[in-house]
Amino acid sequence: MKRRDFITGAAVGTAATVLSSGKLVQAQQAPAAMKDRVEIAVVTTWPRDFPGLGTGAQRFAKRVQDMSDGRIQVSYFAAGERVGAFDSFDEVASGNAQAYHAADYYWKGKHPGWAYFTSVPFGLTYTEFNGWVRFGGGQELWDELAGEFGLKGLMCGNTGVQMGGWFRKEINTVDDLKGLKMRIPGLGGDVMAKLGASPVSLPGGQIYENLVSGAIDATEGVGPWNDEVMKFYEAAKYYYYPGMHEPGSMLSAGFNKKFWESLSKSDQALIEAAAGMENDVMMSEYNAKNGAALARLRRDQGVQLRKFNDDIYDSFGKAADEVFAGVVGHSALARRIHESFVKAREEIGGWSNVSDQAYVAQRNRVLGMSS
Amino acid sequence: MKRRDFITGAAVGTAATVLSSGKLVQAQQAPAAMKDRVEIAVVTTWPRDFPGLGTGAQRFAKRVQDMSDGRIQVSYFAAGERVGAFDSFDEVASGNAQAYHAADYYWKGKHPGWAYFTSVPFGLTYTEFNGWVRFGGGQELWDELAGEFGLKGLMCGNTGVQMGGWFRKEINTVDDLKGLKMRIPGLGGDVMAKLGASPVSLPGGQIYENLVSGAIDATEGVGPWNDEVMKFYEAAKYYYYPGMHEPGSMLSAGFNKKFWESLSKSDQALIEAAAGMENDVMMSEYNAKNGAALARLRRDQGVQLRKFNDDIYDSFGKAADEVFAGVVGHSALARRIHESFVKAREEIGGWSNVSDQAYVAQRNRVLGMSS
Repeated sequence: MKRRDFITGAAVGTAATVLSSGKLVQAQQAPAAMKDRVEIAVVTTWPRDFPGLGTGAQRFAKRVQDMSDGRIQVSYFAAGERVGAFDSFDEVASGNAQAYHAADYYWKGKHPGWAYFTSVPFGLTYTEFNGWVRFGGGQELWDELAGEFGLKGLMCGNTGVQMGGWFRKEINTVDDLKGLKMRIPGLGGDVMAKLGASPVSLPGGQIYENLVSGAIDATEGVGPWNDEVMKFYEAAKYYYYPGMHEPGSMLSAGFNKKFWESLSKSDQALIEAAAGMENDVMMSEYNAKNGAALARLRRDQGVQLRKFNDDIYDSFGKAADEVFAGVVGHSALARRIHESFVKAREEIGGWSNVSDQAYVAQRNRVLGMSS
Repeated sequence: MKRRDFITGAAVGTAATVLSSGKLVQAQQAPAAMKDRVEIAVVTTWPRDFPGLGTGAQRFAKRVQDMSDGRIQVSYFAAGERVGAFDSFDEVASGNAQAYHAADYYWKGKHPGWAYFTSVPFGLTYTEFNGWVRFGGGQELWDELAGEFGLKGLMCGNTGVQMGGWFRKEINTVDDLKGLKMRIPGLGGDVMAKLGASPVSLPGGQIYENLVSGAIDATEGVGPWNDEVMKFYEAAKYYYYPGMHEPGSMLSAGFNKKFWESLSKSDQALIEAAAGMENDVMMSEYNAKNGAALARLRRDQGVQLRKFNDDIYDSFGKAADEVFAGVVGHSALARRIHESFVKAREEIGGWSNVSDQAYVAQRNRVLGMSS
């Protein structure tokens, strides 16, 4: 996975001394600049060039290479180009590839704790999530979970609050969800199951065909910018908000743990910064493009924007409590992850009432900006 | 500002050939990894170790050095250690130092456009701001403005929505603002002036002494985490929210433009990623720590949390319109910056009604999380 260049630091030091005896101080500085070459194969759960998720992962891969001036060589494989989307986990855990870019909730069948490191129902928004992971104990718990599978994860992108989904009919009461075959992964799918729907987990690239064929009745996607490209509106016109199931889905760069630990501290810092920047950049792009896309969908495609009513939200809340009760019963680690998440939601989510939530409400009221 | 190591790539290539003739292919790979050493002096507008603003700037400086394994040497100077806080601009524009970390609205006297690249009244929240700068034309306008002064800016931190300020008395009507000497920089200060207050611009480190001495009657700070450290509560007990004046203040890493352009593409990419990560990390820390600090202020210091009422917010809105009218009259560039900002506020701020705003309202309602 990692190979040294023919010229090692020691050889350079020796050579420099030969070339210029008496310049030993400068010669000893050379090894620091003569870094190992590194090769990273990245497999992903996204179709090539898929807006946001795919292009963001590709941008991250290119950035690592650019920042290192090509010393770190990154080979990027979209879903299906090397392994199937959902085989990314095993490919990296086994060490066949060095990293994946994915939504970790795809692995909730291996451990429900993974869901928390993408997004969970009634979970955290983008900035709240970052606060939890970076300063509220989230990263340490993620490291513990990932470590059990031989992995190490870094935050590397976010979609922001997702839409509630595409439906062929209006959803006015909880009864309207009963029997619905809906593509909705993660714990959000479990919430829908508690309410009588049949959740299905499919990679993004397979949703459209299943929706058009009628194999599924409804789907959540991501948001207007992505969903417009996916053409879900051809099969379902009612577009609901806000989504309770993924209020700020974080995409992760997951590394094979042994590979990660073999990297120098400086290469770890370089890759962390590339991932940290992409975490911000992907969110920026979703925020910049979702609004205009939603306007186009409503104007050009006859999409009907609908808001889940309070009764339905209350039902979502009760069902989520039941789902979480099942999660914390899974294992001590699942319980600790859940409890850490709940503490962050109270502290950081409560602060939102005084900051973002209070401010945007006043700003948009004064400016007459309605949805 | 930039000097080559004693050992150049060419010398190493030669040495390697001497050491192992016939291994020329490997030897030729060496120059790519043998990068120039770079020295960067960073001056700032923050006291040393000031939480968030100062520690974030210090973290950014250290990260650049760590990512490059010390090849890029960063010397960090807090306010007053090399030049005074507000002399940072000239120090970098002149090329005496290579970079500053500051709030660009401190330079609004040089051009009102600078205010937009920190935060303006009724402006953008953190994620909205990032969307504008990265994907809505903001960076290009910032480059144009900074270029006129020989500078190049990168987003490098954010405080999030700031509190409305500390007051000795309750603010129930706009009349209560009249005659108030208040520390409030940027265009927010101009809004207060329209409403009859006397705005003052002071570096953070000088606020406390002026508030305690009575030289000023009121001050805005940042948020609970910072303001608790500043002990403003010793002189003013009424803590208002939400602040209209700085809804997501971005801190910038401003580089001397010639220095920036002298850097290799890969070093530019490395520094951009370090800044991009700090943009996310600083915001994360504010979000993680503000809520608990606000609870402590209310419980331990007798701080009275108050919300600006709708009438006052309406007055803020009218005054802000007048301030903006003055800004767009300044110059064609000021007008273009303002118009780009307004477009981003409508598109991205409108999307918030369907995403973050709608979601957090429902989540916090269902969970019974009040402020």
